[in-house]
Amino acid sequence: MYHHVKKLMYTVNIGEPDVRFGNMLLEQFGGANGELAAAMQYSIQGFNCEDEARRDLLMDIGTEELSHLEVVGALIRMHLKPMKSNREAAEADPLVSIAGGGGVALFNSVGDPWTADYLKITGDLAVDLRSNIAAEARAKIVYERLINFTDDAGTKEALQFLMTREITHMRAFSAALETMEKPPFSIGLIAPTPGLVDEFFNDSTGEEEEEESETVEIIEHGGLHLVNSPLFDGDGLDISPAQPVPNSEKTSPADSTPVGVVAGNHNKKSENKRPTKKAS
Amino acid sequence: MYHHVKKLMYTVNIGEPDVRFGNMLLEQFGGANGELAAAMQYSIQGFNCEDEARRDLLMDIGTEELSHLEVVGALIRMHLKPMKSNREAAEADPLVSIAGGGGVALFNSVGDPWTADYLKITGDLAVDLRSNIAAEARAKIVYERLINFTDDAGTKEALQFLMTREITHMRAFSAALETMEKPPFSIGLIAPTPGLVDEFFNDSTGEEEEEESETVEIIEHGGLHLVNSPLFDGDGLDISPAQPVPNSEKTSPADSTPVGVVAGNHNKKSENKRPTKKAS
Amino acid sequence: MYHHVKKLMYTVNIGEPDVRFGNMLLEQFGGANGELAAAMQYSIQGFNCEDEARRDLLMDIGTEELSHLEVVGALIRMHLKPMKSNREAAEADPLVSIAGGGGVALFNSVGDPWTADYLKITGDLAVDLRSNIAAEARAKIVYERLINFTDDAGTKEALQFLMTREITHMRAFSAALETMEKPPFSIGLIAPTPGLVDEFFNDSTGEEEEEESETVEIIEHGGLHLVNSPLFDGDGLDISPAQPVPNSEKTSPADSTPVGVVAGNHNKKSENKRPTKKAS
Amino acid sequence: MYHHVKKLMYTVNIGEPDVRFGNMLLEQFGGANGELAAAMQYSIQGFNCEDEARRDLLMDIGTEELSHLEVVGALIRMHLKPMKSNREAAEADPLVSIAGGGGVALFNSVGDPWTADYLKITGDLAVDLRSNIAAEARAKIVYERLINFTDDAGTKEALQFLMTREITHMRAFSAALETMEKPPFSIGLIAPTPGLVDEFFNDSTGEEEEEESETVEIIEHGGLHLVNSPLFDGDGLDISPAQPVPNSEKTSPADSTPVGVVAGNHNKKSENKRPTKKAS
Amino acid sequence: MYHHVKKLMYTVNIGEPDVRFGNMLLEQFGGANGELAAAMQYSIQGFNCEDEARRDLLMDIGTEELSHLEVVGALIRMHLKPMKSNREAAEADPLVSIAGGGGVALFNSVGDPWTADYLKITGDLAVDLRSNIAAEARAKIVYERLINFTDDAGTKEALQFLMTREITHMRAFSAALETMEKPPFSIGLIAPTPGLVDEFFNDSTGEEEEEESETVEIIEHGGLHLVNSPLFDGDGLDISPAQPVPNSEKTSPADSTPVGVVAGNHNKKSENKRPTKKAS
Amino acid sequence: MYHHVKKLMYTVNIGEPDVRFGNMLLEQFGGANGELAAAMQYSIQGFNCEDEARRDLLMDIGTEELSHLEVVGALIRMHLKPMKSNREAAEADPLVSIAGGGGVALFNSVGDPWTADYLKITGDLAVDLRSNIAAEARAKIVYERLINFTDDAGTKEALQFLMTREITHMRAFSAALETMEKPPFSIGLIAPTPGLVDEFFNDSTGEEEEEESETVEIIEHGGLHLVNSPLFDGDGLDISPAQPVPNSEKTSPADSTPVGVVAGNHNKKSENKRPTKKAS
Repeated sequence: MYHHVKKLMYTVNIGEPDVRFGNMLLEQFGGANGELAAAMQYSIQGFNCEDEARRDLLMDIGTEELSHLEVVGALIRMHLKPMKSNREAAEADPLVSIAGGGGVALFNSVGDPWTADYLKITGDLAVDLRSNIAAEARAKIVYERLINFTDDAGTKEALQFLMTREITHMRAFSAALETMEKPPFSIGLIAPTPGLVDEFFNDSTGEEEEEESETVEIIEHGGLHLVNSPLFDGDGLDISPAQPVPNSEKTSPADSTPVGVVAGNHNKKSENKRPTKKAS
Repeated sequence: MYHHVKKLMYTVNIGEPDVRFGNMLLEQFGGANGELAAAMQYSIQGFNCEDEARRDLLMDIGTEELSHLEVVGALIRMHLKPMKSNREAAEADPLVSIAGGGGVALFNSVGDPWTADYLKITGDLAVDLRSNIAAEARAKIVYERLINFTDDAGTKEALQFLMTREITHMRAFSAALETMEKPPFSIGLIAPTPGLVDEFFNDSTGEEEEEESETVEIIEHGGLHLVNSPLFDGDGLDISPAQPVPNSEKTSPADSTPVGVVAGNHNKKSENKRPTKKAS
Repeated sequence: MYHHVKKLMYTVNIGEPDVRFGNMLLEQFGGANGELAAAMQYSIQGFNCEDEARRDLLMDIGTEELSHLEVVGALIRMHLKPMKSNREAAEADPLVSIAGGGGVALFNSVGDPWTADYLKITGDLAVDLRSNIAAEARAKIVYERLINFTDDAGTKEALQFLMTREITHMRAFSAALETMEKPPFSIGLIAPTPGLVDEFFNDSTGEEEEEESETVEIIEHGGLHLVNSPLFDGDGLDISPAQPVPNSEKTSPADSTPVGVVAGNHNKKSENKRPTKKAS
Repeated sequence: MYHHVKKLMYTVNIGEPDVRFGNMLLEQFGGANGELAAAMQYSIQGFNCEDEARRDLLMDIGTEELSHLEVVGALIRMHLKPMKSNREAAEADPLVSIAGGGGVALFNSVGDPWTADYLKITGDLAVDLRSNIAAEARAKIVYERLINFTDDAGTKEALQFLMTREITHMRAFSAALETMEKPPFSIGLIAPTPGLVDEFFNDSTGEEEEEESETVEIIEHGGLHLVNSPLFDGDGLDISPAQPVPNSEKTSPADSTPVGVVAGNHNKKSENKRPTKKAS
Repeated sequence: MYHHVKKLMYTVNIGEPDVRFGNMLLEQFGGANGELAAAMQYSIQGFNCEDEARRDLLMDIGTEELSHLEVVGALIRMHLKPMKSNREAAEADPLVSIAGGGGVALFNSVGDPWTADYLKITGDLAVDLRSNIAAEARAKIVYERLINFTDDAGTKEALQFLMTREITHMRAFSAALETMEKPPFSIGLIAPTPGLVDEFFNDSTGEEEEEESETVEIIEHGGLHLVNSPLFDGDGLDISPAQPVPNSEKTSPADSTPVGVVAGNHNKKSENKRPTKKAS
Repeated sequence: MYHHVKKLMYTVNIGEPDVRFGNMLLEQFGGANGELAAAMQYSIQGFNCEDEARRDLLMDIGTEELSHLEVVGALIRMHLKPMKSNREAAEADPLVSIAGGGGVALFNSVGDPWTADYLKITGDLAVDLRSNIAAEARAKIVYERLINFTDDAGTKEALQFLMTREITHMRAFSAALETMEKPPFSIGLIAPTPGLVDEFFNDSTGEEEEEESETVEIIEHGGLHLVNSPLFDGDGLDISPAQPVPNSEKTSPADSTPVGVVAGNHNKKSENKRPTKKAS
């Protein structure tokens, strides 16, 4: 159940309206990495989450993002105000001006309608938390770029507030993932094929030798080794057939119910399966 | 500022999960006339609304719709549960099952992603309230159809609750429009061209005389008269050029700031213009 | 069956082309509330309509909107003409200029492709007429804003013509709804839950007491009373379970066939059901 | 100006409704290659067309496609009728049933909303006619597949009618292109670079020698010769820089006004430029 | 299997960056007729193609278009570079600047996301080749317009290279179609209804007699004759019912497997059916 | 420059075609987390990447994903084959069958067209790598679910191969991020506001005390502390205004050029700025 309080989470004040900047700010209202995208991604993951503590965390953050949506909306409306009366200002975004009356709506800076395709919701908690960490990083860099393109002190302060919260949330999601105590590359219940999983395929080649050697350093840092393409007399990837092994990955008590495990040919359940939880 | 309470506005209980019905219910979660569409349409109109009482009303209803989103989501999740383990159930909506892990996400019953193109937000309060009345009527009929396609008592009760609220909101929006005290067909500040506005153009014709006469009765109820097409020796519409007359329509103190009136060649302001209000 | 006459419904003349304005006008060609949206919404409702008189009315208006599409298209092409030869003009809308050759196409003022998601078609006549009334109100206000942003006399006259027609259609749709003789908040066949339907939930609160009291006046005008949230020791909404009662709403002979009534557990039909009509 | 006649261009009769087939038929109503797509593509090209005879032809065909839309819609409605009352039928397309009340709407067979992205409108007549020829070929094959998936005689006859018309239109568009008397690969005003234009780049290779030789025969039929990739010691394409030569292509009096020729550094006009035409 | 070589197919050099032009160039990167659309349309047709020689040809061209995507991307990045540091430059495309960091992404010149709705893939080879011929014509004209809107020599040379390749591909696709040796209007396996197929319906009429006579010349060139609408006492189209005749069209050994022929009531196979081929 | 080799990276063999499963597999062809999405996200990040070693790595992986697209496409085509001839099979996905001829195309399992909105490309390398790690985790879990829903050994082996590669890539992207040697929550150049960044806002509350305490443990693991809402007499977040401090975050030599830093009021450059690199 939601409640709305008629007070902004952060009071915004601006100097002179800057219509073109207001238009840019729409990225954080109705854009792909904006506040509604964040609010919806986390809240709906929360609706689906079977682990109570992390559901609580998802709802805490999802709800705060709704409050941010309202703050960004207020900031944008101040900057867009000249669109109501000034033809040149209206040209900055005719969709907002002519169709929307100069107010905010769920469009990004070039008028694309907000779409649920922006969201990453898989119903697997350990996966979703990674999507959220990345989402917060994206939202942070977008706020920073906006800060860099305005000189208005009040606007900068509001954006600094909002940008800071993204880092807070990024830390919270990281903590939620780390405390699940799964190995860093353990996703789901089926382990990747040994051997093959360590092969890094060199599928883009050229004459720039120096750079290639740095790439090798990086992949070796990740425990991988380079395999060259058979196109150039390399060994190619190991393509020996391998059957998936159910329950070969390490799980966590906080893991989501896996999808499809009862189906098909594997009729004995995993021993290390997480305890049953009541659905909600 | 928003707050979330960890309790559903309406507790849902179902008997046997019905996956195909759960899929149908997605219309009211991520569909064109569903709860998110309602929540967003009213809340964002609220963000933009300059009239305080009606802004409050928009935020009250917009927030309640968010709570409904959560209720519908809980109901759907119960019905979709078999998708997690049963292949045949998964076939009912592979997007939900394979990509979404059997949980809710912002898609409709055929997997279209929710889009802001569903929303009707013009920034003109008297217009937006009409869009909301229509939106509530649509949401009502969709709930009714869902009720008609299930036998599950608990599901029916939840849908009856949600359906009832749409009528409540429809009444509230109608009251908000009526209390603005504008004539029923007065939109904006520029009146339509007299004479021409009373002409109903008969642009679809045939041999079904009886029906045509009932159509004439209807339009005469609306103060209109029939004009036949010049294609069939009718008079056609009155196409004498007419200039728009600024401020020829009746306004309300609750009206939104008009868009564009300061522009162009009309440099004297309306006398009956609504009093200035502080932007928020 | 359709026929096209090689003559515009309203002859358009403009002075100097205004490329940026031509771009704004695309809202009424390929935009969410534009002429194609109107033409398609009413015509397809007409295809589906079982009531002959109102089907005729829907086809009359739907076809007139197609003629308007052609008029708006002609007006836009005149304003966009410099896009063919002038680089700066082309920058006003590179999609139109580079990809479209400077002509009209089904995009709005910011280049979003026209989508059927703009349309509101439920197959329930009494609901669809409400959607149409709202659609006409939106189209009217958009034309008015466009008028306010141009000084060109010929352009203003053409827009005044088109804007006037929206009010005519709004009156026709209202008449079509009123003559169905259904009570104002009677939608479909199942009545809302008594008691609950009168409760207005106060889900957005604050310290602005004065405004809140005006909100109460409005909802009381609609026969509703305020219910406060349990979050603040209010009573909350009445959540006693209530089963839907089939055929508890008043119907009209012009009503559409309801959806789903034969399904499920209610096997006796309504007494006051509309007479059978031949499908077409 | 458009007019609608209350009579279908082709009267449809069906035996037993086949809901799943009705759903498939939506491809030709609201799908990518369906009747609305055809109607809009040709009509809007017609709005933009500067050559009067071909504009007439585009409007003739565009308008006929609107009449086809109505015919297909009638056919679909008959097949979808059980969706109104039968739960299992409703499952065939819950969007149509629950949200649309069992009627037609602008969605394809899997519920994607119709979008203007389906259309190919460049504003260059000789290019647009090629897009139309291809569009008719696509519509033809889709009708044929539908015919192959039904046994209902009345349905087959209606589809045979509609399918036949696509071939008629394909012939008309081909004639409209041929009578422009441009060489087959002459597009626009700037000729391709000689030499380079004859090189076919062998960018997909393998061990299937036999097939490769047939590919060579095909390209030699087109006056091209094979060039192998430098990756495998081939010569690669000729990448010598070449400047575009304005007006080096052959034009037709029916050609559209080119876009951008007045811009930039080429300040003397072409000698063989098409005669000026009045814009409309 | 794909391989990438760290070298552009065509090295690009530009003089001064031109941000607005870089923005226009996005049409050929992430636009409807751009390089990704070409690469995907041909490659996926190639994946589906049963005829080996033409599959090879589709993969050759599809892969070359991927290399073009990289070239166009490099050109755009050079022109967009000022977006990283300059506020006014950033205003040319805030989506690219703020959300994308000034790099390329799969958007067109007005920020619409690339969509598979741009593609025309029917799985019928003779139809798909027509779609490809039209696609190349569109890409050619778009490159020409871009050339016409820039003065930068390096940019012009790169665009001339890319534009030339479109003509090469257009010739290759035409050769692939011609060598299938099907009659020009033979699509699929079912012939259109004789008689009806020769009727051109005059569905757009007016007073412009001269133009109408040229239209008649065009359609007679195509072997068609004019039929007037019954609305104006014409004969109308021949609507006598006709059943589809399976296998009445001429096929080619290179034709794709037809869809649906085994279904329904036609249980004897065609005599002139193409020989079975192994699926791949 | 790309090259295609006429050999699949992994040869696929299946037993009996399973049409509904083939339809599910489309998620990994044209779906949000499928192979084209991966190929495009990494390749286009690669086009934009200024760090040569990581650009190489992005191109290696992006190109491999294209090869995977081809493998998945081959697998799907085998499973979809009955759609060509069998009506019931065709009902599993009428878009694929009727419009696509039973072949693969860029749609997901419910027919949504692939869209660039699926991609996460910010032009900031350290951010993009996080998006890629999350993308690989999503792709992995989707492959696992598909494995769980099939019994076909050949299909399982192919999916196991593809699934394994996602983990390889996840490790490579993690290595690429770690070797940039930035602190884990350091994004961009502007540090978050101290103090505020440590506050976790408790914006979702209820009576479930036990769960709340586990949430506190998680956030304390992340160095955060709980702040309650002022709505319930909590302190609320620290909303003291704070100005952004340019260059207060730690950077890496591999970082992308920041966006907007030269703009506005901060005219002295960072000392620890990364060395200039040649744009490509």
